[in-house]
Amino acid sequence: MEKLNFASDYIYGAHPAVLEALSKLNDAPLPGYGTDGVTEGARALIRDAAACPDAAVHFISGGTQANLLVIAAMLRSCEGVIAADTGHINAHEAGAIELTGHKVLTLPGENGKLNASDVRAFMRRFAADENRAHTVQPRLVYISQPTEYGTLYSLEELRALREVCDACGLYLYADGARLAYALASAGNDVSLRDLSALCDAYTVGGTKCGALFGEAVVIPDKRLLPYFFTQIKQHGALLAKGFALGAQFVALFQNGLYGRIGRPAIEAADRIREALREKGYALSPETPTNQIFVLLENAEYERLSKEVALGFWEQPDDAHTVARIATSWATTPEETDALLQKL
Amino acid sequence: MEKLNFASDYIYGAHPAVLEALSKLNDAPLPGYGTDGVTEGARALIRDAAACPDAAVHFISGGTQANLLVIAAMLRSCEGVIAADTGHINAHEAGAIELTGHKVLTLPGENGKLNASDVRAFMRRFAADENRAHTVQPRLVYISQPTEYGTLYSLEELRALREVCDACGLYLYADGARLAYALASAGNDVSLRDLSALCDAYTVGGTKCGALFGEAVVIPDKRLLPYFFTQIKQHGALLAKGFALGAQFVALFQNGLYGRIGRPAIEAADRIREALREKGYALSPETPTNQIFVLLENAEYERLSKEVALGFWEQPDDAHTVARIATSWATTPEETDALLQKL
Amino acid sequence: MEKLNFASDYIYGAHPAVLEALSKLNDAPLPGYGTDGVTEGARALIRDAAACPDAAVHFISGGTQANLLVIAAMLRSCEGVIAADTGHINAHEAGAIELTGHKVLTLPGENGKLNASDVRAFMRRFAADENRAHTVQPRLVYISQPTEYGTLYSLEELRALREVCDACGLYLYADGARLAYALASAGNDVSLRDLSALCDAYTVGGTKCGALFGEAVVIPDKRLLPYFFTQIKQHGALLAKGFALGAQFVALFQNGLYGRIGRPAIEAADRIREALREKGYALSPETPTNQIFVLLENAEYERLSKEVALGFWEQPDDAHTVARIATSWATTPEETDALLQKL
Amino acid sequence: MEKLNFASDYIYGAHPAVLEALSKLNDAPLPGYGTDGVTEGARALIRDAAACPDAAVHFISGGTQANLLVIAAMLRSCEGVIAADTGHINAHEAGAIELTGHKVLTLPGENGKLNASDVRAFMRRFAADENRAHTVQPRLVYISQPTEYGTLYSLEELRALREVCDACGLYLYADGARLAYALASAGNDVSLRDLSALCDAYTVGGTKCGALFGEAVVIPDKRLLPYFFTQIKQHGALLAKGFALGAQFVALFQNGLYGRIGRPAIEAADRIREALREKGYALSPETPTNQIFVLLENAEYERLSKEVALGFWEQPDDAHTVARIATSWATTPEETDALLQKL
Repeated sequence: MEKLNFASDYIYGAHPAVLEALSKLNDAPLPGYGTDGVTEGARALIRDAAACPDAAVHFISGGTQANLLVIAAMLRSCEGVIAADTGHINAHEAGAIELTGHKVLTLPGENGKLNASDVRAFMRRFAADENRAHTVQPRLVYISQPTEYGTLYSLEELRALREVCDACGLYLYADGARLAYALASAGNDVSLRDLSALCDAYTVGGTKCGALFGEAVVIPDKRLLPYFFTQIKQHGALLAKGFALGAQFVALFQNGLYGRIGRPAIEAADRIREALREKGYALSPETPTNQIFVLLENAEYERLSKEVALGFWEQPDDAHTVARIATSWATTPEETDALLQKL
Repeated sequence: MEKLNFASDYIYGAHPAVLEALSKLNDAPLPGYGTDGVTEGARALIRDAAACPDAAVHFISGGTQANLLVIAAMLRSCEGVIAADTGHINAHEAGAIELTGHKVLTLPGENGKLNASDVRAFMRRFAADENRAHTVQPRLVYISQPTEYGTLYSLEELRALREVCDACGLYLYADGARLAYALASAGNDVSLRDLSALCDAYTVGGTKCGALFGEAVVIPDKRLLPYFFTQIKQHGALLAKGFALGAQFVALFQNGLYGRIGRPAIEAADRIREALREKGYALSPETPTNQIFVLLENAEYERLSKEVALGFWEQPDDAHTVARIATSWATTPEETDALLQKL
Repeated sequence: MEKLNFASDYIYGAHPAVLEALSKLNDAPLPGYGTDGVTEGARALIRDAAACPDAAVHFISGGTQANLLVIAAMLRSCEGVIAADTGHINAHEAGAIELTGHKVLTLPGENGKLNASDVRAFMRRFAADENRAHTVQPRLVYISQPTEYGTLYSLEELRALREVCDACGLYLYADGARLAYALASAGNDVSLRDLSALCDAYTVGGTKCGALFGEAVVIPDKRLLPYFFTQIKQHGALLAKGFALGAQFVALFQNGLYGRIGRPAIEAADRIREALREKGYALSPETPTNQIFVLLENAEYERLSKEVALGFWEQPDDAHTVARIATSWATTPEETDALLQKL
Repeated sequence: MEKLNFASDYIYGAHPAVLEALSKLNDAPLPGYGTDGVTEGARALIRDAAACPDAAVHFISGGTQANLLVIAAMLRSCEGVIAADTGHINAHEAGAIELTGHKVLTLPGENGKLNASDVRAFMRRFAADENRAHTVQPRLVYISQPTEYGTLYSLEELRALREVCDACGLYLYADGARLAYALASAGNDVSLRDLSALCDAYTVGGTKCGALFGEAVVIPDKRLLPYFFTQIKQHGALLAKGFALGAQFVALFQNGLYGRIGRPAIEAADRIREALREKGYALSPETPTNQIFVLLENAEYERLSKEVALGFWEQPDDAHTVARIATSWATTPEETDALLQKL
């Protein structure tokens, strides 16, 4: 029997609808590089769901790749991207953004979130610096929804960020690698439509949300990045069989699946959170989505890790470990029951 | 009914064995980033088939990505890569190698192939140049097997290149995006085992050879690139669900499928070549693999393109077009019959 | 006694007027980074001499640095620069342009010059290529005046290049590292004013034309590169004591010195050329400026090199060497006499 | 009369000995690119003063350029450099290090200094991180002597850093842009010889220490960076007239001038510090070298700025400005008297 596994939300292949779509790609030949009708259909479905009929929609294999492509395409050489210090691009991408030549300008995040007033204060300091022409020029704000810590921006918070961006000449980019889990959360009030209205670009995550692999990059005003196709190619990120991405997103967006696919994850996570709180565990931070961060004594972490695959998150001190429990679209009530028994 | 399609070897999804392997990934959870047992199994199968038990084997989404990763990892900043002017990295990758900071040093190819004596002459001129410390330092030879033009290096030619590389302090890297079609060609005498013995790195193509997507990078002496895993991550090329690549290569290498998978393509291509020659078409160049380059008057190209999807290759002059006819593992005798009737 | 030296045009310190200007920098304190009044004066003199009152003028330490800065600032990531295969950026800059991420797209030069009709044909092929979105996007034409081979573009040739650039959406950039020797040549009909009218950017060389070091970058329409100052800083090319560059260019442009400074070089070169022709040497190519390329048998090259420092240029075959004889603003009639006696 | 100027230590041309050396470069021709005898003499003088007879010594135009060259040459693509958050490479170089593809990993500095125990703790956290292969690999520690804040590392502190570096596989690089002011400070116990023994590379600043421009890069074990010459060229940082750098460093190191040249600056700074303390100004931080950071109310900063050119440093809050008062080798007792009267 398999060991119980809550290590991440990318431990299973793909949603059955996605697998079925992939198997149909043998039925008829398709042109390459995402120029086919299936992929065009995926774009239409996303434009429709996100209410951005003129958007450019590109499909990319993975999240780090999507992030570095969008950020590098948006910035001139001396420009940088503002992010929370805990942001994925700052902490977990092995220097991918810097490899494209750009500095990540970090601000302290609150539970993974950038605060609009912190961005405003940063930009005020920048404007007041008499030597600012000698420094990196801030040009883009990077956020993720949900964040690295599973927290969510409210619509009000997102609007506040957009306002700062407009006031200061900044682009706004939202990394939606786990977006389905935001959309399925009771605590969420930000729709795809809101992202289209408020962001200069955002991604709709597939890899962690039911796809075998793949992220959709949405650029509501496509004139912003006129050479994005060639830039994807140049980064080695253009799949010859682009339809393998397109077909998956057709499956995810047909009949509104993407809006529902995260629900089992949220239901499971809610049950686990409740149980952990009852047993007196500290959640750090509290989250409304599919990731749960629980503070454990090292010995307990080790004991539990033997029975359940968990994600290592960090060691806040020598005696404790923060473990991540991640549910997904594939999590079953039985798996959740089994986990609750181990706690 | 679908239009007849010989535009490329990446027009269908994947070999049934590959699709079956992907569907099984829902049976049990697996850890991420290619650290799982399935992917480890794929590595073992490739090491075994290629007789390089200590090789590092990495799986990458696409060919351009594999090329830029290997080349960038091998070179110091001021070093460059020697390639035929027609080489994929020089002509068809949108400047991917230059984006990593390296110059492609081109030599005239013969039907897509680099000649060992041309490399030797180039290195002799470099050594004689009193200003050579002011120029790009050649450090790596890039070839592809088959080449962009579907031609093959013989074992003797490959050994000659290795000798020059050894004499001049150069690495040798072979891009095997279509390697299955080399292995299935009657004209081929270079085995996987030979590539392991003669190259510092090479790829085993999946995307064009039966996989949904994916290439295997083989580094016979793994000490050569100690940080390759992190460099893959940094380029955004590390799939969270690495097992999606591993599972496909298990399917391709189990029971020797990779050695056989190209045969239908070669059989079809041989029939087409014979028919074209009979009808007096010029093949430019003659090739022993799955790609056929045929010189057509522009009007004929346009007429034929209406009935059969062909690949545009180049316009050698204002009146002619070279079209590419590509067969694949998925080409059926019926499709070939239909094509022959159109000619 | 010093060995006779015609190895290059950068073998002596600086014109006396330049040295005097540098020594005056101790008279009074000046602000840093080229924001001082002396440097502003240099800019005004150049704008005046070049008839471009709104130009941005930046001073850079050296020619390769100026080239890579201008080219990198003008191009988006997937764009490339067209140059003659013999162009300095392609052959003599150790891959500096590629290090900034851009491909040099080479065309065969004629005696170092790019032909407008070759550029037009290249752009026509690019436009006809159905796969052009997968390749480097040509965006900029690089030329030098004089060229690497000491030849000159005529005003008519330059206008033809500008026309192609306008027709094809290309920028035009002229590297003027040796511009003073063009301006002093009897064969020249291109003025600074013409460069301002026809180029999107060009450099006015100092290092080889009387300065201790330094090049001026002129951008006739300064809106083209709004962040050039910060980009200079980011490349490590912004001198703290920017006035050390400004003061030299004040000296070079005051009283029209730059227009005259190359004359001794041209007079000397004309005498040497005449003598070489008389003695039956092959000049390869014929040039109207301060560089003379003479084909020598290897033994003769070695004999002569013992008596006169010459520049090594290339070995066209195993038996011959092309040597470069370079005169400069500092060449005296006595040195020229001495050289003629050695021949 | 000139306005009193304590804005920086690069407001005057050059020490008379340097100017004299430059004027002598017209006496005889010299080969290019630093291959001349004058530059070789400068290297010998530095190797001798620094007790590192086998060191590679390279001369570079400016400090940011030297920093980015050394750091980029030392690191593989996925490696990063540890620096104090206030370090010059992090705060004042417009993203130069990131442009070379490398992340600056910041630790909180204490008055501009990196603490060895903080580096050790950082490396311990890195080693404990189960996901460390997915992050930037720390490989180099960057410090400056004196620091951005004019403070000094003691020999003991430097040895502690070296120990951590040895224990953790890190290189140590010291930026000595203002090194002469460290050497002249009574509070200093770190010699050139110590830097040679403890650092993998360091710079000896010229621009701020009496030269017109230029920094010397010292690599005690030259095998560490075998292609540094070509890498300098590739970054556009190789001066054709390399002797213009060499001659200045001959002047600075002949007869031990470099060891004495900072004394007038330190004497002036000591007098200013004493006066400021007497008048009750807060120094932030206290420094033993030629830079003084004084906290002023905004109105006072504005008043004083009208009479004396000062450096803007930062605004710690809305009401205050930290101004920098910098003395230099050129500061006269009369200038110091005049400043003291204004306070």
